[in-house]
Amino acid sequence: MALNALKARKRSDYKFVLEYRTRWSDNDMYHHLNNSVYYFLFDSVVNTYLIKHCSLHPPTSSQIGLVVHSHCDYFGPIEFPDIVDLALRVNKLGKSSVTYEIGVFVQGQEQVRAVGEFVHVFVDRKSRKPTKEGMAEELKMGLTEIVVERTRL
Amino acid sequence: MALNALKARKRSDYKFVLEYRTRWSDNDMYHHLNNSVYYFLFDSVVNTYLIKHCSLHPPTSSQIGLVVHSHCDYFGPIEFPDIVDLALRVNKLGKSSVTYEIGVFVQGQEQVRAVGEFVHVFVDRKSRKPTKEGMAEELKMGLTEIVVERTRL
Amino acid sequence: MALNALKARKRSDYKFVLEYRTRWSDNDMYHHLNNSVYYFLFDSVVNTYLIKHCSLHPPTSSQIGLVVHSHCDYFGPIEFPDIVDLALRVNKLGKSSVTYEIGVFVQGQEQVRAVGEFVHVFVDRKSRKPTKEGMAEELKMGLTEIVVERTRL
Amino acid sequence: MALNALKARKRSDYKFVLEYRTRWSDNDMYHHLNNSVYYFLFDSVVNTYLIKHCSLHPPTSSQIGLVVHSHCDYFGPIEFPDIVDLALRVNKLGKSSVTYEIGVFVQGQEQVRAVGEFVHVFVDRKSRKPTKEGMAEELKMGLTEIVVERTRL
Repeated sequence: MALNALKARKRSDYKFVLEYRTRWSDNDMYHHLNNSVYYFLFDSVVNTYLIKHCSLHPPTSSQIGLVVHSHCDYFGPIEFPDIVDLALRVNKLGKSSVTYEIGVFVQGQEQVRAVGEFVHVFVDRKSRKPTKEGMAEELKMGLTEIVVERTRL
Repeated sequence: MALNALKARKRSDYKFVLEYRTRWSDNDMYHHLNNSVYYFLFDSVVNTYLIKHCSLHPPTSSQIGLVVHSHCDYFGPIEFPDIVDLALRVNKLGKSSVTYEIGVFVQGQEQVRAVGEFVHVFVDRKSRKPTKEGMAEELKMGLTEIVVERTRL
Repeated sequence: MALNALKARKRSDYKFVLEYRTRWSDNDMYHHLNNSVYYFLFDSVVNTYLIKHCSLHPPTSSQIGLVVHSHCDYFGPIEFPDIVDLALRVNKLGKSSVTYEIGVFVQGQEQVRAVGEFVHVFVDRKSRKPTKEGMAEELKMGLTEIVVERTRL
Repeated sequence: MALNALKARKRSDYKFVLEYRTRWSDNDMYHHLNNSVYYFLFDSVVNTYLIKHCSLHPPTSSQIGLVVHSHCDYFGPIEFPDIVDLALRVNKLGKSSVTYEIGVFVQGQEQVRAVGEFVHVFVDRKSRKPTKEGMAEELKMGLTEIVVERTRL
């Protein structure tokens, strides 16, 4: 997707939002959130959604989500003790895999600071391979709720 | 301090509280918050207080706080995606040093899950030594606000 | 770049290698390195190279590197206490920006487990904008040493 | 234990040593290892020892170690990209619990930078309570190897 379109993302382009406080240790030597920390935040909003709205129970669910790809574009700094809004949508929902997009906003400010995507493949907990039937019904149902149709882009 | 007294800590024993979401990566292989993560949370509530109520500006303040000691007692598990209340007080306020106590509570539940202390020595940013005059006036004033008198223990 | 080509990466495709131990907390609830941890490792090998071979001194250098984009493809799991080889090359060296590629290998094993890229823009420490002259000479010289020519791809 | 005695710790006071590279993100805004990071390192050397020398297999072992207490005294800074030696001993070996001590040294330098202790209680994986018989035989045997007798203090 074109960088300019990502840079113009608004909270209203997303379907699920969680507020997160940053932590002292998120800032690196340059006094802003380290680039890696964004991925920890992505994981947190996605897994909260999976647990609360898709019946995922990480210690026991028969399927788990493995990350096979992730990326992020950074548009502006975030600094502890900023509070961020993590905004989530699903860009693509396949048989066993799902592509999430997360926008990171600083509370009280419009402009998006970073936009990333990552891809989960849901696999059998033991074999660590996708199943014939694809992702479990509860996962598919919950994730369908936050799909954003291409026509809305 | 006796372990039993710490185990009985309530939110009302503290003077400043921040709500923090846990993160996916906070859980370790045993499906609960890793013991080290508590110290990241301690740092976060303390430095938020120092920045918001004691005029600390970490990138430029002439004095900075170095941690010389920390400890924590763990009474019960916390699991992502729990939301925690980090409750802060000052147990001892010296000329250049301060001993913080932090209680960690899970939202909606009374029983404290962990209690820790850590000691900051405020030093000159360049020499990394305490100054003759001790900690800056704004630090002392802000920290005095959350001292809990021994008689309240 | 085609995923198949990345999956075929060998240690000999890179120019600088550091050995890193994984940490207990790197493993998440699924008992393997969390996807976000790879970015911490990328940052570590790149900044070690910048400090040791390009005269970067993060607390004082007049230019610093800001990450504007990062991505990673994951091909197989890594589990604490595995020891990893972080292998580094430069794929593109511009006037102010550089694109690094990092391959992550488990010690004693041939197959690459993950390959990522990230882009640093070198900016003036104060203005946080690139300078007219582009990146400092020491940076350019050091980074040139680990450029891999396109023809080698 | 007296702080002066801890400050005088040498590598030879310990029984098992692992070399660890620090990471870029370990440094906080004050350009040295954040105090919390030491606990990640403690966990890493202890669990490496448990896995390699005490037959612990974290995903499946019938007993797991829960941390009930930890503390650390900090004597001097460590800065990325320093390489550290993590030196381990057991100070107390009980029926179900063990008290580890870890000394943190910078490679090539004699003076210890930090000394910490933490206490594991080995519990049944499911009930999360200690068993009647105490810790498993393999754990006890492995840990006995690195006990340092009080008379050596």
